[in-house]
Amino acid sequence: MQTWDQLFLEVNIATMCSGSTPYGAISNGALAISDGQIAWVGPESELQSYDAKTIHRLDGRWLTPALIDCHTHLVFGGDRAMEFEQRLSGVSYEEIARAGGGIRSTVRATRNASHSVLLDSAMERVVTLIREGVATVEVKSGYGLDSKTEISMLEVAQELEQSCSASIVKTFLGAHAIPEEFQHDSDSYMDFVINEALPLAYERQLVDAVDAYCENIAFSAPQVAKLFEKAKSLKIDVKLHADQLSDCGGAELAASFNALSADHIEYTTATGVEALASSGTVAVLLPGPFLILGETQLPPIDELRANRVPIAIATDCNPGSSPLCSIRLAMNLATSLFKLTPEECLAGVTRNAAQALGLLTDRGTLELGKRADLVVWNISHPRDLSYWAGFNQLHRLFINGGVVD
Amino acid sequence: MQTWDQLFLEVNIATMCSGSTPYGAISNGALAISDGQIAWVGPESELQSYDAKTIHRLDGRWLTPALIDCHTHLVFGGDRAMEFEQRLSGVSYEEIARAGGGIRSTVRATRNASHSVLLDSAMERVVTLIREGVATVEVKSGYGLDSKTEISMLEVAQELEQSCSASIVKTFLGAHAIPEEFQHDSDSYMDFVINEALPLAYERQLVDAVDAYCENIAFSAPQVAKLFEKAKSLKIDVKLHADQLSDCGGAELAASFNALSADHIEYTTATGVEALASSGTVAVLLPGPFLILGETQLPPIDELRANRVPIAIATDCNPGSSPLCSIRLAMNLATSLFKLTPEECLAGVTRNAAQALGLLTDRGTLELGKRADLVVWNISHPRDLSYWAGFNQLHRLFINGGVVD
Repeated sequence: MQTWDQLFLEVNIATMCSGSTPYGAISNGALAISDGQIAWVGPESELQSYDAKTIHRLDGRWLTPALIDCHTHLVFGGDRAMEFEQRLSGVSYEEIARAGGGIRSTVRATRNASHSVLLDSAMERVVTLIREGVATVEVKSGYGLDSKTEISMLEVAQELEQSCSASIVKTFLGAHAIPEEFQHDSDSYMDFVINEALPLAYERQLVDAVDAYCENIAFSAPQVAKLFEKAKSLKIDVKLHADQLSDCGGAELAASFNALSADHIEYTTATGVEALASSGTVAVLLPGPFLILGETQLPPIDELRANRVPIAIATDCNPGSSPLCSIRLAMNLATSLFKLTPEECLAGVTRNAAQALGLLTDRGTLELGKRADLVVWNISHPRDLSYWAGFNQLHRLFINGGVVD
Repeated sequence: MQTWDQLFLEVNIATMCSGSTPYGAISNGALAISDGQIAWVGPESELQSYDAKTIHRLDGRWLTPALIDCHTHLVFGGDRAMEFEQRLSGVSYEEIARAGGGIRSTVRATRNASHSVLLDSAMERVVTLIREGVATVEVKSGYGLDSKTEISMLEVAQELEQSCSASIVKTFLGAHAIPEEFQHDSDSYMDFVINEALPLAYERQLVDAVDAYCENIAFSAPQVAKLFEKAKSLKIDVKLHADQLSDCGGAELAASFNALSADHIEYTTATGVEALASSGTVAVLLPGPFLILGETQLPPIDELRANRVPIAIATDCNPGSSPLCSIRLAMNLATSLFKLTPEECLAGVTRNAAQALGLLTDRGTLELGKRADLVVWNISHPRDLSYWAGFNQLHRLFINGGVVD
């Protein structure tokens, strides 16, 4: 008889494995952990004789995979609250931009911020996510736009992981915006990203994936393609901010490089969705900036469903278009704004978010052999997690089998 | 020299007194508390010799009035998460209603819930609000629609106050919906409310104000007028769910009774707004149900501003149209959805929310002689409170001068 480290009994389990019951649910289930991995999961009635060092009797609570926020920009200097207030007081975007506002103000503030200020402020945001049941957070660079600060942001991301219990996935987003120094020469900036910044970050093992912003106001599809060629030559996965404000063929571009994910995609066409389906690319929907920017063009939800493109949801936590630091709120907004079902929302922050980070074999569902990243909730059904806004029913979060205080 | 109980130094203060600086702000301020009241407030430089039992040095943090949620239905049985999921899966409102869903399902669940279940579940919601800095919560009846359950809901509200540090304001909303027993005879139900339920609740001292739902699907203006006459004869203030789904002349009706507030008011006309201005009635805007019901008709914000009608914001926390338990999120949504400024949002949950509850002489601003209900925030400016969603920068909440753990 095997002795497990921990055993959860008297619990309902939303495994989030697709294809079986809604939510992959097991009523009256049991789940065992050993060595930080899921060692057994199934109906309690099928559990034969067992032994465990710790037994948690959960009184009918629900167990889900721990949540995953697969798209954030949560390392940054300063904030943009003043600009936010100015816009609501009637100051135009142009006036704000002329006064040095917008992403450039965040670039300036991030370049000027000390390492410890960047780390401490980002840590507060990560801790806020962890308190909601998040165990894996993607963090992008992209407010440095020079080698030193891009590297520094990724180092902060690495240190976040060392200082907290969550996993941090580091994404290099040097191609986020065109810095002032290269204002009229985006090609030269992209060359710098490809030939200097990315190789340097890669060499220091700070790059889990490469991202870019393909948009009229940022980089063209051919420029991004050049960057992605480089990433592929280094065997780094890519992902793309695609078709957020206009149809730039971003989804097709992402698919042609077998991108992990295409994010935003409000303006993606049916052809773009078919391309995502063929390449197995995840669609990451971001209701935060959709709400805050007052967008009206909805992402092609029905086409994504018809083509069985996995849909993930993330906070896009950033100081400009999404000062949103709650994955639960992103889920709730995805129901109101995008009419996703509660099951799609929960899959969007577990199974599909794991796939968007290339981590599905390791986490995102409650299955034998996966990391024991899981949440015990005080809920009567997993749909409650999308239904409530601003109400945290977390009972206990386990990461890698360890309980998080 | 006077000895104060407590003195806050090295602090910026958003007094939220209108008319002076934005946010009624005092940089480098000081605030003293004695006997649960504000005993001094002003620039620290104007503080002469002083003595205090406890001195809090706040390191440049901000102090604001404690927040007030002036419109909630947070005492209820059951929930409506299943119905929420059904709607998102394509089941129509009619089908849900035919299957016994909608408000009637909450009435059934509330009538069937034990007192302790009602109390415990409501307490979780109040505690969630308190953690965000809320010190005063309005709670309505209206899911009983019979004497026993209406009374029971108000008793729960009263017990909430006894069991937590927040003030609970009790509103009698017997005229919330027409119960099944009176399905085809709303006049008789209103007679019952006027002649039996309200007098009984009043006699037990459970009624701080009387509210009603004036709408095509609920009660007509003449029916509500009859109820309000009764309330006035008992010297109870009134307020109204007005013009949420159609223009029913709700604002005019509320104004004609000098109502404390007219709530929702998406369909209120310019004439209605002028009536509110004349009567000194507060407009309570509720972005939660606006978002969740997918409304597109905006409340008449510009007219409210032009007529200087005080605007309050609340959660409308309820299981059907607003499963929202965060006043901070209501503030943030009011910026995105209604384009209110951060200052309007903060006034909407402090000064104007106090006025909506008839409590402005007692709280809602940081002024000499008012209750010492205040929050110390880890923010660099009060605009941050509307800017961030899902990020709680509360440092410490004081209610009646006492710190809340």
